[in-house]
Amino acid sequence: MSKKIICVFLGGRANYSSIRSAMRAIQEHPDLELKVILGSSALVKKYGNLEKILNNDGFTVDERVHMLVEGDEPVSMVKTAGIGMLGLADAFARIHPDYVIVVGDRYEMMAPTIAAAYMNIPVAHTMGGEVTGTIDESIRHAITKFAHIHFPANKESAERILKLGEDECRVFNVGCPRIDTVKEILEANPTVPDEIYNVCGGVGPEFDLHQPFLLVSQHPVTTEYQEAGNQMTETIQAAIEVGLPTIVLWPNSDAGTEGLSQAIRIFREKHPDALLHAFINLPVHIYVRLMNNTACLVGNSSSGIREGAFIGTPCVNVGTRQEGRERGSNVIDTPCDRKAIAEAIRKQIAHGKYASEPIYGNGTAGKKIADILATTEVEIQKRITY
Amino acid sequence: MSKKIICVFLGGRANYSSIRSAMRAIQEHPDLELKVILGSSALVKKYGNLEKILNNDGFTVDERVHMLVEGDEPVSMVKTAGIGMLGLADAFARIHPDYVIVVGDRYEMMAPTIAAAYMNIPVAHTMGGEVTGTIDESIRHAITKFAHIHFPANKESAERILKLGEDECRVFNVGCPRIDTVKEILEANPTVPDEIYNVCGGVGPEFDLHQPFLLVSQHPVTTEYQEAGNQMTETIQAAIEVGLPTIVLWPNSDAGTEGLSQAIRIFREKHPDALLHAFINLPVHIYVRLMNNTACLVGNSSSGIREGAFIGTPCVNVGTRQEGRERGSNVIDTPCDRKAIAEAIRKQIAHGKYASEPIYGNGTAGKKIADILATTEVEIQKRITY
Amino acid sequence: MSKKIICVFLGGRANYSSIRSAMRAIQEHPDLELKVILGSSALVKKYGNLEKILNNDGFTVDERVHMLVEGDEPVSMVKTAGIGMLGLADAFARIHPDYVIVVGDRYEMMAPTIAAAYMNIPVAHTMGGEVTGTIDESIRHAITKFAHIHFPANKESAERILKLGEDECRVFNVGCPRIDTVKEILEANPTVPDEIYNVCGGVGPEFDLHQPFLLVSQHPVTTEYQEAGNQMTETIQAAIEVGLPTIVLWPNSDAGTEGLSQAIRIFREKHPDALLHAFINLPVHIYVRLMNNTACLVGNSSSGIREGAFIGTPCVNVGTRQEGRERGSNVIDTPCDRKAIAEAIRKQIAHGKYASEPIYGNGTAGKKIADILATTEVEIQKRITY
Amino acid sequence: MSKKIICVFLGGRANYSSIRSAMRAIQEHPDLELKVILGSSALVKKYGNLEKILNNDGFTVDERVHMLVEGDEPVSMVKTAGIGMLGLADAFARIHPDYVIVVGDRYEMMAPTIAAAYMNIPVAHTMGGEVTGTIDESIRHAITKFAHIHFPANKESAERILKLGEDECRVFNVGCPRIDTVKEILEANPTVPDEIYNVCGGVGPEFDLHQPFLLVSQHPVTTEYQEAGNQMTETIQAAIEVGLPTIVLWPNSDAGTEGLSQAIRIFREKHPDALLHAFINLPVHIYVRLMNNTACLVGNSSSGIREGAFIGTPCVNVGTRQEGRERGSNVIDTPCDRKAIAEAIRKQIAHGKYASEPIYGNGTAGKKIADILATTEVEIQKRITY
Repeated sequence: MSKKIICVFLGGRANYSSIRSAMRAIQEHPDLELKVILGSSALVKKYGNLEKILNNDGFTVDERVHMLVEGDEPVSMVKTAGIGMLGLADAFARIHPDYVIVVGDRYEMMAPTIAAAYMNIPVAHTMGGEVTGTIDESIRHAITKFAHIHFPANKESAERILKLGEDECRVFNVGCPRIDTVKEILEANPTVPDEIYNVCGGVGPEFDLHQPFLLVSQHPVTTEYQEAGNQMTETIQAAIEVGLPTIVLWPNSDAGTEGLSQAIRIFREKHPDALLHAFINLPVHIYVRLMNNTACLVGNSSSGIREGAFIGTPCVNVGTRQEGRERGSNVIDTPCDRKAIAEAIRKQIAHGKYASEPIYGNGTAGKKIADILATTEVEIQKRITY
Repeated sequence: MSKKIICVFLGGRANYSSIRSAMRAIQEHPDLELKVILGSSALVKKYGNLEKILNNDGFTVDERVHMLVEGDEPVSMVKTAGIGMLGLADAFARIHPDYVIVVGDRYEMMAPTIAAAYMNIPVAHTMGGEVTGTIDESIRHAITKFAHIHFPANKESAERILKLGEDECRVFNVGCPRIDTVKEILEANPTVPDEIYNVCGGVGPEFDLHQPFLLVSQHPVTTEYQEAGNQMTETIQAAIEVGLPTIVLWPNSDAGTEGLSQAIRIFREKHPDALLHAFINLPVHIYVRLMNNTACLVGNSSSGIREGAFIGTPCVNVGTRQEGRERGSNVIDTPCDRKAIAEAIRKQIAHGKYASEPIYGNGTAGKKIADILATTEVEIQKRITY
Repeated sequence: MSKKIICVFLGGRANYSSIRSAMRAIQEHPDLELKVILGSSALVKKYGNLEKILNNDGFTVDERVHMLVEGDEPVSMVKTAGIGMLGLADAFARIHPDYVIVVGDRYEMMAPTIAAAYMNIPVAHTMGGEVTGTIDESIRHAITKFAHIHFPANKESAERILKLGEDECRVFNVGCPRIDTVKEILEANPTVPDEIYNVCGGVGPEFDLHQPFLLVSQHPVTTEYQEAGNQMTETIQAAIEVGLPTIVLWPNSDAGTEGLSQAIRIFREKHPDALLHAFINLPVHIYVRLMNNTACLVGNSSSGIREGAFIGTPCVNVGTRQEGRERGSNVIDTPCDRKAIAEAIRKQIAHGKYASEPIYGNGTAGKKIADILATTEVEIQKRITY
Repeated sequence: MSKKIICVFLGGRANYSSIRSAMRAIQEHPDLELKVILGSSALVKKYGNLEKILNNDGFTVDERVHMLVEGDEPVSMVKTAGIGMLGLADAFARIHPDYVIVVGDRYEMMAPTIAAAYMNIPVAHTMGGEVTGTIDESIRHAITKFAHIHFPANKESAERILKLGEDECRVFNVGCPRIDTVKEILEANPTVPDEIYNVCGGVGPEFDLHQPFLLVSQHPVTTEYQEAGNQMTETIQAAIEVGLPTIVLWPNSDAGTEGLSQAIRIFREKHPDALLHAFINLPVHIYVRLMNNTACLVGNSSSGIREGAFIGTPCVNVGTRQEGRERGSNVIDTPCDRKAIAEAIRKQIAHGKYASEPIYGNGTAGKKIADILATTEVEIQKRITY
């Protein structure tokens, strides 16, 4: 019997972190063959050389679809998704996948979803059924309505997918593959690597990460994209006010990214003495270890809520981006106001690390996904259950 | 106060029939301004000159986005939608609509849906919440998850939209605008026009349409697109076996259209004496009057179920395409087999016309849509209700 | 040493006929590896299943780029070329060709030209340096300015390419590969095959092709595309007036094709008794044998001038499409007027077959192209010679 | 009589500088109406807000076509041009221009050229007939072969266009519109504005520009794009070695831009004390005044050769990018090697300013272009002259 071809589309580093353990399990599964397509920011060097990371991890790239349209406006998001569809249609016609795995809910994910569904290729969706802000909220549920098999990351999400009219025998609460990676990384080494500055470069002063430090990870909110720069400024100012040295991560590509990047640049020019170090790209295994050791993670990244629950990272979640996502006791929510943020950071520093909560799985999601794809046949014609 | 700009995207003649009464009501509303964008088969002459029809009806076209990619395969559907997104992004950036109306569930409708939603333009969706076969089933519900305001055509559909997690105060069961047009047409003149052959052309013998005749309207089923030709052959053969003269309508553009068109051509070449007349494009007002007078409508067009219920047209619905759609007593469902189809046609001829059933509204949908759009403000950030 | 990868882009059947002998020679060359990309009408069934023809000839297809946008307007030509560029960019990035062969001058040929040239892949151009009407005239010379190596089909063309500022050591007058195929076909069998109607189908009466017959091959002229239908009507009418049974070939895809196809359909509906048989797709080997036996080839196809010179086919060339192309004594030019055309046809019938003239080569072009590509290294940076 | 519609496509700031005086003359001409389409980097904020500059200069933007695809590889250039064609096809169909003006030879310029030519819209080309390195060399001559009317910037270029087989009565040596602007700016005020740092921002120390300073303007060379970073490093190092304070301009978008930008960033991080100030976007009127006062312009910008000849700016031209362009006595060419560059800079500093040479016109190009467009009718069918 020939192997089932499982095709994963990666639109960027965050995607990869969210599916890496499943990719490994697919690669190692005797009945499955993995195909990897890169697109969007995964092919743009300024967001990091993802292909090199994949190669180092033992994966090869089968297709590359350049699609990321520049410009700090939503119209660019539409064009990126549209070009992605054109390229992925050709790619899928060559690969003939048995399943296309669509990860999460970023705007370019409509491209593999529509391309596969229209071409009668079953769509497997991870991280469906969650609730957040931004256009991602609509995208996620729309992908659910195209997907033939669902791998939600937690119980509430699985229930929501069923309410959306999906067939119970196609919904599998496997947990989040990101947790698999977190578990693997921290079991290997839980401390911040001494060589972080040499390996990851970045700009700004290099302070001791074995002492208390803050970690800032903030992305633009699509529906408020013109505010992205100001929002970043509020968060950085709050971090500086608290007085701990601070690591800042460069944001993903998105409408609003430019404003946000500029905010970092302007802050650094204006405050050349601030203990602020910005990394452009951090490998997952380093980011996770930073999360394991930071006094507080600040911003609006889903990692604070998702991986943070498992790790026990004290987290200050800023603004609307993560609204609706299930969260553990490690998260304090604040509006995007420097005073409120600073106060919440101080509370989290006082509290210290939290106990681990398995809200997003126990570290076996990837293997479950591979096993289920290997053994499940779906009907290409979907039908709402009510 | 400036008028709200309501932008309608028309991908073909069928779209227009489904939204015409709403377009008229928007045009006549003092607080609304109508903008019309044509795309897909609406711009391809072989599917009829829709712009001319619109002009005759008093509408002007504001934008044209050529997007229909040739080729008898699903990959062309993906590319069509992708190119549509590219063109519509530019068009919406120029028009700045307050609402984009997305009609129904054809594959190109993902283009205006994604373009508008990503660009923070509210999406108004008509004909959501229905249940059918083919990829349209997934598309329809995905559009619902992107749409900010919903105009389902019947009660069951409205309830389904609510179950999909949409906000109750954004769901309006207005009925189907197609019924508005049917009502208007039949009130003006219920009989088949004598000049039909002169006006509409077509190929094949011209028989008397005041005598009993059959009407065939069949489209390819996307998930079975390679079967489209054979399926058409079954239906035509059944019609000819029954022995009544038969009107056949040329199909919409879709994966499978070529096979289906070829089936008609081959049949005509092989049976030059058959009483079969094929029309390439019929104006709505003539089609409706044919429906009002045919002994039986045969095929898989939604019109048999939807307008048929209102008109009372005896209808034989063939195959899987309309599975799940609410239907009245005027419909007999059959598999795609010439014997089964012929038998059902004979039953319907014996029964004769049915009483009108208002399943899809009472002829006031268009006006309701315009009024609601004029008075409703929506939040651009959606949130699932559970 | 690894083989050089030679990539051929085929946009339709005509392209294939123009490069087939070179493809074979490349395939058989020990130092070369052939890669075939299909696009444009080559992937649209209604223009014939080119992939099947290729497979029967022993070629495999490596990539397929669906790109043909429907619509009877020049805007569709632009979009087709644009989508082609998007798809070919991805395809070339996968294949990494050492040369991309661009055949002739149809509008979609700008796509492989620009994609290759921008990606620093050497472009080999066949049939450059000729002079014709329509936009092809500009396209051809523009491709010359992008191409790194030139394979013109005759002496005058080679001289024109040098005048355009190309480097003498990169211009090779190899003759036309179409002549190679013609020679091969007629050496194998010069008569019209008895089974032509069974094999090639088509519509209309089937008459004896061992008796005198006319052959009509006419394409739309881009700059006069709205006239395409009328022009076809003139030619068919002329053929019918002359009184010989007539074979008509269905036109290539182009702006204007619809009008032209319709003209054939309308004529057949109006004159059901005319001795007119239309073939949708003719294999080259049959077309060439028709050219070898027809009383007169009528229309504006380049084959009358090019292959016609070699075969000695009496040819009536209608209208502006072939203006400027070198021609032999076998061609009579006429305006697009049925009387003028009919008169010219009668003259040609009276004259009978012509002697062969080697204007477009002696049947060794394909092998020469392969040998030159195998042994020539070009610099990617071009520079005009004056 | 209705006005002729003259449509200008601007792909970035450099385009604008090259056509501004013609735009003004068209706007002021009683028989012409100007339409402006922005695309490519003109719509990406990080390359400067061109629309705002246009508005300040009294121009309005009629269409915006987002097209710039990210990624540091040639494949992105192909996709940018392809998307541009899709968007421009729709735009031209709306505007119905009588002429489309195509400026120069950057890779995105194939998009308006092909879109217009395929749609039977006459193309007017400026800056044709020049000779340079990179893919621009091929693009420029290919555009000439599509263009219906030519506005070369100097005598040698006009002669080269004629040799390319263009009709003599369609070639007008009007001079370069950039010179018009230079003349206007310097007549208004020839000195460096005191407020330059306040108005233009930038990063790095702010030194006195009334004292001798160097000006560096260097772009990536497409065929050597992987070397772009190193090439920039050589030039900056040379400038620093010479010891004068140095202004660096951020490069245009192109394959290789990222590497080049990074080189500037890395240099600044490594040499925080260097007297190096980098401007992201400089308004033309300031750049010209810098050129008028710098001790030496270093890099590979065409401005050193073109405007430099008129202004008399001492110029060191580095590497292959400007090979073949006519130049005055103000230019010293060097390879891309820091020692050679430094030596040439020292020579130029010793020489001081040069006398003005009118190689690229005398400042009346824009007006001539407008007058010729107003009075010239072209045939859409081109024909090579030999």
